[in-house]
Amino acid sequence: MEARPVDLLIRADYVVTDPHEPPVADGFVAVNSGVVLDVGQGDGAERLYAPGRVLDRRNCLVMPGLINTHTHAAMTLFRGLADDLPLKTWLEEHIFPREARLTRDLVALGTRLACAEMIRCGTSGFVDMYLFEDAVAEVVDQVGLRGWLGEGVFDFPSPAFPSGREALEETRRLMEKWRGHDRVTITIDPHTPYTCAPSLLEEAGQLASDTGAMMVIHLAETSWEQAEIKRRYGVSPAFHLDGLGLLNDRLLAVHGVSLTGEEMELLGEKRVRLAHCPESNHKLGSGTCPVLDLMEAGVLVSLGTDGAASNNDLDLLSEMDFAAKIPKGVRRDPTLLSAPDALAMATTWAARALHRPDLGRITPGSQADMAVVDLHSPHLVPCYNPVSQIVYSARSGDVRDLLVAGSLLMEDRVLKTIDEEALFAEVREAARRLSA
Amino acid sequence: MEARPVDLLIRADYVVTDPHEPPVADGFVAVNSGVVLDVGQGDGAERLYAPGRVLDRRNCLVMPGLINTHTHAAMTLFRGLADDLPLKTWLEEHIFPREARLTRDLVALGTRLACAEMIRCGTSGFVDMYLFEDAVAEVVDQVGLRGWLGEGVFDFPSPAFPSGREALEETRRLMEKWRGHDRVTITIDPHTPYTCAPSLLEEAGQLASDTGAMMVIHLAETSWEQAEIKRRYGVSPAFHLDGLGLLNDRLLAVHGVSLTGEEMELLGEKRVRLAHCPESNHKLGSGTCPVLDLMEAGVLVSLGTDGAASNNDLDLLSEMDFAAKIPKGVRRDPTLLSAPDALAMATTWAARALHRPDLGRITPGSQADMAVVDLHSPHLVPCYNPVSQIVYSARSGDVRDLLVAGSLLMEDRVLKTIDEEALFAEVREAARRLSA
Repeated sequence: MEARPVDLLIRADYVVTDPHEPPVADGFVAVNSGVVLDVGQGDGAERLYAPGRVLDRRNCLVMPGLINTHTHAAMTLFRGLADDLPLKTWLEEHIFPREARLTRDLVALGTRLACAEMIRCGTSGFVDMYLFEDAVAEVVDQVGLRGWLGEGVFDFPSPAFPSGREALEETRRLMEKWRGHDRVTITIDPHTPYTCAPSLLEEAGQLASDTGAMMVIHLAETSWEQAEIKRRYGVSPAFHLDGLGLLNDRLLAVHGVSLTGEEMELLGEKRVRLAHCPESNHKLGSGTCPVLDLMEAGVLVSLGTDGAASNNDLDLLSEMDFAAKIPKGVRRDPTLLSAPDALAMATTWAARALHRPDLGRITPGSQADMAVVDLHSPHLVPCYNPVSQIVYSARSGDVRDLLVAGSLLMEDRVLKTIDEEALFAEVREAARRLSA
Repeated sequence: MEARPVDLLIRADYVVTDPHEPPVADGFVAVNSGVVLDVGQGDGAERLYAPGRVLDRRNCLVMPGLINTHTHAAMTLFRGLADDLPLKTWLEEHIFPREARLTRDLVALGTRLACAEMIRCGTSGFVDMYLFEDAVAEVVDQVGLRGWLGEGVFDFPSPAFPSGREALEETRRLMEKWRGHDRVTITIDPHTPYTCAPSLLEEAGQLASDTGAMMVIHLAETSWEQAEIKRRYGVSPAFHLDGLGLLNDRLLAVHGVSLTGEEMELLGEKRVRLAHCPESNHKLGSGTCPVLDLMEAGVLVSLGTDGAASNNDLDLLSEMDFAAKIPKGVRRDPTLLSAPDALAMATTWAARALHRPDLGRITPGSQADMAVVDLHSPHLVPCYNPVSQIVYSARSGDVRDLLVAGSLLMEDRVLKTIDEEALFAEVREAARRLSA
């Protein structure tokens, strides 16, 4: 039998195909036209495939590319600018005045920095809500990552648009512009139930049902929001959104720290997705998201880092570790939120949340979005359990290669689509101006 | 004026001399005979000093070497072997049967692996409680780190010694053997109040008061222990130790997750030190240590990782991040446990806990224990606040150099005292045997 020509063959000590499946030891992945063609074990690949290119990754594992389901990518420009402050001081004295000075170019710059960081953390796609999102889409297009991108919609003027209505208009325009792009997807992003009036939320909901696009909204991030929405509308935030017809399986709600039991049941019934951002929730003092209760209520939970100004990184490897440990400590039970579940939150469950069954795992027919993790380091030797190592021990410096749709965005720790030296110089200069 | 000859001059963008002092921008550190001679700013160093060696570290910061105040270093051999299990199953079915097969050589091997990991995480010293501690001391001596090392003492036979009395005898012998060593300090390590009978604890206390050595003990790690000690002795664990005369400023208690308010007051009054291990406490489901209450009660708190089997790393950079975020989330206040406090737990406060005012900061007269952190990476650019970057964003891959007493144990990410290739091969082989 003739060996079949394929674009790429990766060999590694382990292929983690799916967090809940046993890893393939001494494995290979064959990739053609950006899609996984085959996953196998041992030397079989040599007889079956004639690869155009081989990545021979001994002492490494291959895992699905991670998906960060909540970011404000360009906030990398504000990382570490102001920490450990009361939320109001942080926002009003430090973040908002800087955001007011953001331009389309600065957002592109901060997003490029975020993309460099995320690629180095093994992230192949991210869900972003910010300003000048068209600039974010252009960066994502050029850099090669996947993005689910939404222009922030508020009742008040943003640095990008004078009104929520115009931000929704922009959303419509972006949907036209990026329609059919294989990696850029436009979402509809009303900011929160307390920064968007019911009429604006309904308009956003109408756009969602007209287009079938996903909607992303911050929901019940704090107990203040819970109380404020009740004060204004007489019901809890999730019921408020339900009254406006917004709860369905195309809604990705973010945070959910201060939800009532009834709201969790409601979100579960309505098949709403929840992006869980535990590091940011803790760092901002919002509290601990009842993620196990949400899962028990049937809510599909994925993982996000939130922006770098409140985390302070975009690293899903450390986020998985944090997410896996917190519920064990809170409920005093080490069996809860296992390593496979934490990895699923950043892969298979994130892909399901985004209605993308072709992402989040390495299986024939999947998009070839993968990260190679180098195990040849003192904190990863020996390796008894690859999934445990990923969640509890690996960190971004261990990621060696990153592929999206079969293209190498990082090879042997060198970024292929971003000139980091030029980027860092430009960011340092921008930071000097922003902090002045 | 003639320039003064010194062994070493380090230049960096920032010198973080003390977590609670402003960093020196465009700084230098002059080192002679293993001690910090001077810290300054700008180009002054050239006129003042004629260094034998210069480390020119642009786009880097220098910080005090981190001190890990609780480890079981050799448990690196069991990292990821068994996770997410009930504590009893984990210990009795996985850890204890493997520990029973440990030998002096295996402990030396696991400790060498731990030292490689800790050096790469910016750690210059660690407090270790384990078995065959003489082997640990030999590794520490050879590798060049600082160690506060104690042989575990139990009522029952350990893999190393047939009885607690003999483990105490060994402790006495180790004190003789290592007396006067500049980096190895022997401690007295009764395992817990529930694995050591009162008579054994009293004997350990006698040895401590005879020698002035520090004692290390696990205390109130779980609510089970709290209940069990009350059941056996009618008082809470800290009061039980107090009744045996063990509470004083030479006692380093570890964990303190399940302490009553009265116990915290007592520990504060008696000036007991507490090694806080938040990642391990959460991962094992023990709970959340009330670290702010302890600090309010006047207890000096330092940071530890615990063993790699329950963390799953020995990385104080990620531990600081975790330690700083948890109390903010639990008390819903982002101003609590600031980045400088988290860094102090791993530097200045750890040094105070160990009665070593010459460690934990970079100041004239201090031991030259320092880590150089590379800031030229997407998650560390821009750098508005070096202490925030260390605590919330840096990770072990960012550590470029590590010095202890002026000696480079890692230079430009290459270990100088450990052959990692040989080590990894030996560890992989040992792991095959241990997991069989």
